[in-house]
Amino acid sequence: MLKVERLLVNYKTLEEFKKFREYGIQELSMLEDFQSNMIENNSDSPFYGIYYGDKLVARMSLYRVDKRFDQYFTPKQDYLELWKLEVLSDYQGKGYGKTLVEFAKSFRLPIKTNPRVKSGDFWSKMKFELVKYDMDRDKGENPLVWHPSGTSNQS
Amino acid sequence: MLKVERLLVNYKTLEEFKKFREYGIQELSMLEDFQSNMIENNSDSPFYGIYYGDKLVARMSLYRVDKRFDQYFTPKQDYLELWKLEVLSDYQGKGYGKTLVEFAKSFRLPIKTNPRVKSGDFWSKMKFELVKYDMDRDKGENPLVWHPSGTSNQS
Repeated sequence: MLKVERLLVNYKTLEEFKKFREYGIQELSMLEDFQSNMIENNSDSPFYGIYYGDKLVARMSLYRVDKRFDQYFTPKQDYLELWKLEVLSDYQGKGYGKTLVEFAKSFRLPIKTNPRVKSGDFWSKMKFELVKYDMDRDKGENPLVWHPSGTSNQS
Repeated sequence: MLKVERLLVNYKTLEEFKKFREYGIQELSMLEDFQSNMIENNSDSPFYGIYYGDKLVARMSLYRVDKRFDQYFTPKQDYLELWKLEVLSDYQGKGYGKTLVEFAKSFRLPIKTNPRVKSGDFWSKMKFELVKYDMDRDKGENPLVWHPSGTSNQS
């Protein structure tokens, strides 16, 4: 039974983030804000993760987008943007990724993601669908969406 | 002397695109529109590329964003979004990437890109700078910007 936890901003979390391939300016900015005391110790981060023992082995970031900015669903509605879903390589194929995505779905909001690596099979098993490409909106990205019910993609 | 060309939508180009790692729904959508005659043969694509002989070995996509949608530069202005800059692996380290970026700069507009692979050294040599991370805007991305002169990042 895998348990998803909201990750807390502290020295340990910020160190563990460095093991993930998709470490970028988001994490660097959190580290800076933490070191300059702009973020309190143990405050909530936008990340959720799964620990194996006391080691962080899987994570994702979730962000609620206000319907005013929705370009993906009809009618416009609040949705979750999911990014940086990643399982450390030694822990792949054990259901960590699936557990995180199911956790995201449990909010019963539509979800949009833009996977950065080729992972089409995983996302189709998770019932995510490719949107119809719109260059103004998608600019070379590969957005995938999931909707709980009663909503559909914009066309 | 490397020559940058606007890529034309035709069967050959669409086949050559399949060799690039960042082949995604943008290309699939172009292929569909081409096959169903929604795009004319040899019409301009949003891609620019460099040929070695008659083989496409490097490419990028450029898109002009209207200043109404600018969230990256001060004052707000039209800028170029650059994506899918990619050189086939056998042709790397020979100046193809640099030539494409210099071509993009020749429009004398600010440029924003969001590299999908770790390529920080290349972009800093090209004088691109990391923006200050803004979660609402950047959602886990790693945007880099370049400005010709007289503009600065929003802060």
